[in-house]
Amino acid sequence: MRQINLLFAILFLGLNIEAQNKTFTLEDLIPGGKNYPNLAVKTDYRVQWFGDKLVFSDEDAIYAAEPEKPDNKRLLITKQELGKMLGNDNVNLNSIAFGRGKKLASIGLPRENKFILFNPETREIAFEQPLNREWEHRDFCYANNCAAFTVKNNLFIVDANGKAAPVAEDANEGIVYGQSVHRNEFGINKGTFWSPSGNFLAFYRMDETMVGDYPLVNISAREAELKNIKYPMAGMASHEVTLGIYSIATGRTVYMKTGEPRDHYLTNIVWDPTEKYVYIAELNREQNHLRYNKYDAATGELAATLFEERNEHYVEPQKPALFLTKTGSQFVWQSRRDGYDHLYLYNTDGKLLRQLTSGNFETLSVLGFDAEEKNLFIVTNEGNPVENQVYKVELKTGKRTLLTKGNGVHSPALSASGKYFIDRFSNLETPLNIDLYSTSKPVPVRLQTAENPYKDYVMPEITLGKLKAADGKTDLYYHLAKPTNFDPKKKYPAVVYVYGGPHSQMIKNNWLASLRGWSLYMAQMGYVVFSMDNRGTSNRGMEFESVTHRHLGIEETADQMCGAEFLKSLPYVDAERIGVHGWSFGGFMTTNLMLRHPETFKVGVAGGPVIDWKLYEVMYGERYMDTPEENPDGYRDTDMKRLAGNLKGHFLLIHGDIDPTVVWQNSLSFLDACIVARTYPDYFVYPGQEHNMTGPSRVHLHEKITRYFEDYLK
Amino acid sequence: MRQINLLFAILFLGLNIEAQNKTFTLEDLIPGGKNYPNLAVKTDYRVQWFGDKLVFSDEDAIYAAEPEKPDNKRLLITKQELGKMLGNDNVNLNSIAFGRGKKLASIGLPRENKFILFNPETREIAFEQPLNREWEHRDFCYANNCAAFTVKNNLFIVDANGKAAPVAEDANEGIVYGQSVHRNEFGINKGTFWSPSGNFLAFYRMDETMVGDYPLVNISAREAELKNIKYPMAGMASHEVTLGIYSIATGRTVYMKTGEPRDHYLTNIVWDPTEKYVYIAELNREQNHLRYNKYDAATGELAATLFEERNEHYVEPQKPALFLTKTGSQFVWQSRRDGYDHLYLYNTDGKLLRQLTSGNFETLSVLGFDAEEKNLFIVTNEGNPVENQVYKVELKTGKRTLLTKGNGVHSPALSASGKYFIDRFSNLETPLNIDLYSTSKPVPVRLQTAENPYKDYVMPEITLGKLKAADGKTDLYYHLAKPTNFDPKKKYPAVVYVYGGPHSQMIKNNWLASLRGWSLYMAQMGYVVFSMDNRGTSNRGMEFESVTHRHLGIEETADQMCGAEFLKSLPYVDAERIGVHGWSFGGFMTTNLMLRHPETFKVGVAGGPVIDWKLYEVMYGERYMDTPEENPDGYRDTDMKRLAGNLKGHFLLIHGDIDPTVVWQNSLSFLDACIVARTYPDYFVYPGQEHNMTGPSRVHLHEKITRYFEDYLK
Repeated sequence: MRQINLLFAILFLGLNIEAQNKTFTLEDLIPGGKNYPNLAVKTDYRVQWFGDKLVFSDEDAIYAAEPEKPDNKRLLITKQELGKMLGNDNVNLNSIAFGRGKKLASIGLPRENKFILFNPETREIAFEQPLNREWEHRDFCYANNCAAFTVKNNLFIVDANGKAAPVAEDANEGIVYGQSVHRNEFGINKGTFWSPSGNFLAFYRMDETMVGDYPLVNISAREAELKNIKYPMAGMASHEVTLGIYSIATGRTVYMKTGEPRDHYLTNIVWDPTEKYVYIAELNREQNHLRYNKYDAATGELAATLFEERNEHYVEPQKPALFLTKTGSQFVWQSRRDGYDHLYLYNTDGKLLRQLTSGNFETLSVLGFDAEEKNLFIVTNEGNPVENQVYKVELKTGKRTLLTKGNGVHSPALSASGKYFIDRFSNLETPLNIDLYSTSKPVPVRLQTAENPYKDYVMPEITLGKLKAADGKTDLYYHLAKPTNFDPKKKYPAVVYVYGGPHSQMIKNNWLASLRGWSLYMAQMGYVVFSMDNRGTSNRGMEFESVTHRHLGIEETADQMCGAEFLKSLPYVDAERIGVHGWSFGGFMTTNLMLRHPETFKVGVAGGPVIDWKLYEVMYGERYMDTPEENPDGYRDTDMKRLAGNLKGHFLLIHGDIDPTVVWQNSLSFLDACIVARTYPDYFVYPGQEHNMTGPSRVHLHEKITRYFEDYLK
Repeated sequence: MRQINLLFAILFLGLNIEAQNKTFTLEDLIPGGKNYPNLAVKTDYRVQWFGDKLVFSDEDAIYAAEPEKPDNKRLLITKQELGKMLGNDNVNLNSIAFGRGKKLASIGLPRENKFILFNPETREIAFEQPLNREWEHRDFCYANNCAAFTVKNNLFIVDANGKAAPVAEDANEGIVYGQSVHRNEFGINKGTFWSPSGNFLAFYRMDETMVGDYPLVNISAREAELKNIKYPMAGMASHEVTLGIYSIATGRTVYMKTGEPRDHYLTNIVWDPTEKYVYIAELNREQNHLRYNKYDAATGELAATLFEERNEHYVEPQKPALFLTKTGSQFVWQSRRDGYDHLYLYNTDGKLLRQLTSGNFETLSVLGFDAEEKNLFIVTNEGNPVENQVYKVELKTGKRTLLTKGNGVHSPALSASGKYFIDRFSNLETPLNIDLYSTSKPVPVRLQTAENPYKDYVMPEITLGKLKAADGKTDLYYHLAKPTNFDPKKKYPAVVYVYGGPHSQMIKNNWLASLRGWSLYMAQMGYVVFSMDNRGTSNRGMEFESVTHRHLGIEETADQMCGAEFLKSLPYVDAERIGVHGWSFGGFMTTNLMLRHPETFKVGVAGGPVIDWKLYEVMYGERYMDTPEENPDGYRDTDMKRLAGNLKGHFLLIHGDIDPTVVWQNSLSFLDACIVARTYPDYFVYPGQEHNMTGPSRVHLHEKITRYFEDYLK
C-alpha cells in the first residue's frame, strides 16, 4: 500500500452516555422523508443583509440591527402586521427578498397575482406589478421596474404600469427565446440580462430545429403520453444560439453578429456599465478556444476581441466579468489559464493590468468590492483544499489579507458597502456558527451558534483523511464513518459512496465532513462508509481535473481503487465484503468499479448511470470526451456495454423513467448488453421521476438501496 | 383439505440406471437456447397429405406412398433434383406446401422473387408469380392464381400474369386495408377472403383514426426512436371495421352495409359456395349479442339475419360456418350456446336442421367432411377433459363413432377424400406415435414411432392428477414434477407455474403432461413444480370459463389456493417455501397470489403482467370485464395497484420494453404504487422485446427467474 494515511480530524460524537441512545431512520435523514429535515442544523434566526443593515427573521417576525451593534435587535415588522399590509395572512417570511444591494424588500404573491416592492421600515408599498402563473423565467429589473418573462418559448416584458407585451415570438416551437441555453453549462442559468440602467434587455435565442426529438413517455396518464425533449448527443447536430438586444425605447431588437460556425457557445453574458457594449465569452464547439468579445449593443457589430484563451484539453468559462462601476473601464476576469482558478484585472480595451491572485489554490467565489472599489473580497481554498477562507485583495497590488478565523468551511455574505460580511462557518466538529466580520477589523462577533442536532443520537466516528492517488503523488481526500457502536475486534462490510465527476467536491472539513444522510444511516446499519474525491473532481486545479480528458472513468477508477486498497488494509474491514453506490457520474463510476474490479467490489448500486458517453449530451460530453469521431478509442474504452461480460457480483441499476439528463436509454442499453453477454444485473425504475428521485420516492429509493446491500453484502 | 387427490397416471422416467445420468441445461430446454431443440421429440420423416397421397419428407428427399400401402414408399424427388428444377440449391423441403386439398405443391422463393406451383410427380413447374419483400399478408387464390397482399396499410392484387394493382388505398395511415382486425380475437387471423371460385376478394377495412397513438420507444437506435401503435383501452373509443368486396371482373368494390354502431365486431367472414353471399358473425361492442348476417355480395345489402345468440356473460364466435359444397345450402355452425362447444346444422335460410353434437364436453376442432359430405370428422374431449379423440359424425342423424385408440392427445390430419387421417398421438408416457387411420376401418397402421429424447437423462417423476376447485365441486387438473433424485425424507421448496387465463389449457395427458422446459429444469434444480388449470380456462364449457366474468383473478386465485393447499399437504413440500411464476395473464395471477396470499407465496416472478384491466385493450378486456364505466367495482377489485401495500415476499416483475400486448405501463405503474405504499418489489426489463422474450433473451430470462428462486426460496 503506497497511500499515506494522514488523519487530521476525528470526531467522536457517540460517547455512549445515557442520553445518546436515539437512532435515526431514513425518514429523518433523506429529503422527502416524513421527519426531514428534523436533523438539519438550525439557528434561532435567519440572518441576512438588507443593504448594510442586518436583518434577522424567524417564523413570526423580522428584526433589524446595525452591524456596529448586532445585539441591539429592533422589531421591524411582525408576520401579522406584514399580512395586513400585503393583504395576505399566510405570508412566508422566508419568501421576502432583502439582499445586499437593495433598498426595498420584495415579495411575490401568486395567489393575489402580485409582485410587490415594499419598505419594511416605513411599512409602505412602493410598487405593485401583476404576476401570472403562466409567466416563467421572470426577471425583474430594479432599475426600470419592468420584468421579462416567458410563456412557452416566447419572451415578453411586463412594464412598470403592468402592461405586458411581446419581445420575441416564434410559432415554431424549435425556437426558444429568453431561456437558459447550452444545458446550463458554462455558468449559464438564465436567458435574460437587463442592462444596468434598464434601457435594454439582452436575451438568448436558441434555434433547436436541427435537433431531433427525443421521446420521453409519461406512464401516469390513463394512456401513456409522449413528451419530446431536445437532447443533442455528443457529435450530433446541436442547437444554435444568438443574443438579441431589445431596446425599451424603440421596441426594436438587434442581434449580435456572433457569426459562424453557429453551434459555438455564447457564454457569460454581461453588460458594461455604460450600456454601450455587451461582452460575450465565445467558445468554439470544440471548447478549446475562447474569444472574449465585446459587441456594440446598438449595432450588433463586434467591437473588439479583448483576449483569447486556449487549452489542449478544454476552456470552461464559468463567471461573467465583474465590472468596476466607478471607472466603468475595468473588470475582473476569472480564469484557469495558469492552471488554477485565478483573477485578472483588465481594462475594457483588453489590456491585462495585472493578475490579482496566483498560487496552487483556487478562487472559489468572488463576493464583491468595497464601496470605493479598492478592494475585492474573495473566497479561496489556499493552504487546504477541503477548507476555505475569506480574503481581501487590494486591486492595485494584489495584496491578499486573510479575514476569517477557524479551520473549516466559510460561507460569507458581503454587505452592500463591503464593510461587513456575515460568515456561516462549520467544520467536522462545529454544526454552524454565524459570525459578523468587519472587513477592516480582525475580530468576529458571534451572531448565532447552532446546536448539534444529533446530540441525543448514537453517532458513528467520522474521520477525514488523505491518501495518494494512483499517480503516486497527488493527495486525495476522503471521509470515513465507522459503524455506530464500533467494536475494533469485528470485521465489518464496507460501502463506498462515489461520485468522482467534474464539478464536484464531496469531501470538505464541514459539519460531519459532508457525510450524506444515507452514509450516516449505513454506518448505523453496521457498515464502514467511505467516500473520496478522485482526480477529475473540482477545486484542485486544471491538471488534477483534466487528467481524465478523453477517457472519463479510467483515472477516476484507478484512484478509487487506492481508496479500496486503503479500506482493505483496515483491520476492521472485511475485504471480501466491499460494495459501492453512486448516482449519475457516480453511477457510471459504480459501473466502472463493478466491471473493472469484480474481485474487489461484490455488490454495487448504480443510479441514473451514464453507460456510454455517446448517449450523453453535446456540451458536457464533448468538453470531457471530444466527439465520437474525434475520439473513437476513448468512447470505446469507456463504454460500459463492452464490459458487460465482466459482471460477477450483485449489481443493481436504478433509473427514473423520464430522466432528461442521463437518458434512460443508458441503463436499458446496458441491460441489453448484459443479456447478450449472459450476465445478470438487477434493475429498478422510478416511474415519473427525472434524474434524481424526489419526495417520498427518494426515501423509498434509499430503503431499496439499503436492502440490496443487506441482502447481498451482509 | 377438501380436495380429493386422484392420480390417474404416473411416469417414472428416471430409473437411476447407469445410462440415465445426463442433466439438461436451459440451453437445451428453452427456445433460443444454443442446443434447442435437441430434446424435442423427433421422427425420421415428416408425414403429411398431398391430396389423398401420403408424403414423407426428410432433409434430403420427398417420398410418396398410397395410404393402402404406406410402407411402400417411393422416391418422389430429391433435394438436389428439386434444386435443379427450381434453380435454387438451398431449398428447404419443409417450406414446400402440399396440403389436403391441393393438386400441386407450392413454394415461395424470396431470393428469386418467385412463387411457384409445381408438380412433384411430373417435375414440372405449372405456374410462376412474382414475389416481393415488401408484400405482406400475401393470400394466394388457387382458383384464379391471383394473390392479394398489402404494402403498409394498403391492399393490392397481383394477377395470374404477374401484374400488381391496387384494390384499396388511403393516404391516411389510420385506415388499414386487408389486415387482421379486432386484435386477432374472435378467431380472426387475416384480412382477405377469396371467394370460392376466385371472382371476388372480400377484405377488412379498419378505421383507426379515432384511436389515439400509444407511444413505444426503441432504445436500440443511437437516439431512442418513437414507434406509435394503436392501442384502444377498455372503455375508450375503438376502431371501426367494415367489409369490402372487390370484383375481379369490374375492378369495383362494394362495402357491406353493416350499419351502426360502427364499433361492433365483424367476425368469421365466410363466402357461400355460390359467391352470391358473404356471411358475417356480427357481435355488438358489449359482446353479448351475436347476429349471424348474410349479405348480398353484389349490393352490400343485408339479405337476412339467420339467427341470433345472446349470453348474460359474453358470446365469442370463433369459427366461420363450414359449408357443404354439394348442396351449397347447408352449413355447420359451431357454438357454445348450450353451455358447451357444439355443432349445429343450418340451412342458408337460417333454419336449424339439427344439433349435431351435445353433451358435457367440447368440440375442439372440425377436420372436414368425407367426399360425399355425409359424415363430418371432429375432435372432442368427451370423457376426459385432458385428453381427446377423433369421431365420425353422421350429418343425417348426429350419430357419433369413435375412430381413435389410445388415452392421450390426438392431433389428426384428414386426407382430401376424408377416407384417411394421419394421427399424431402422445400421452404422458408416449413421446409421439404417428398412425394412419382409415375412417372406415378400426385398425390404425403405425407410420412412425418417436424415441424418448430424454432416455439418457435423469428425469423427475411427473404426475397428472385432479383436485376440487374452490367451489367444492368442480374438478381441476394439475401436473406435478418431483425433484430429480427425489428423497421422500426431505422437504423441498415448491414452485407453481401459473397461467389461468381464458383460451388456455396447460394440463393435458400428452408427452410429459405438457410440462414446460423451465419446469423440468426447476425439478432438476431441486424444486417440486406444480401447475393447474383453474376455472376460467378453456375446453371445460361456458360456465367453467365465465364464472370469472367481470372480476378476473378472483375465482382463479381461489382455485390456485386449492392447489397451494394441496402442495402444503404433501409431506415432501416445505410449506414455508412456496413460490409462483407466470407470464401475461399468468403474471397477473402471480401478482394476485403474491398480494392476496403473502402468507403462502414467499417468492414470485411475474412477467408481462396485466396490473390493471383499464390498461388492457378493448376486445379482450371488455369481453371479460365489460367497460370500466359498466363495472367500476370489478375493475377496482382486480386492480393490483390497490393491493401494492400487501407485498411481503420477494417479488420480481419483468417486462419487455416494447410490449404491444400488455403495455409496459402495467408493471411500471405497479412499481409506482409500491413506491407510494412503501413496499419493495424487484424489477427487470428486456429491451427491444415485445410480450414474450425470444431468441437468446429467452434463455437469459429463465436463468434470471431461476436465480431469483435460488436467491430467495432455497
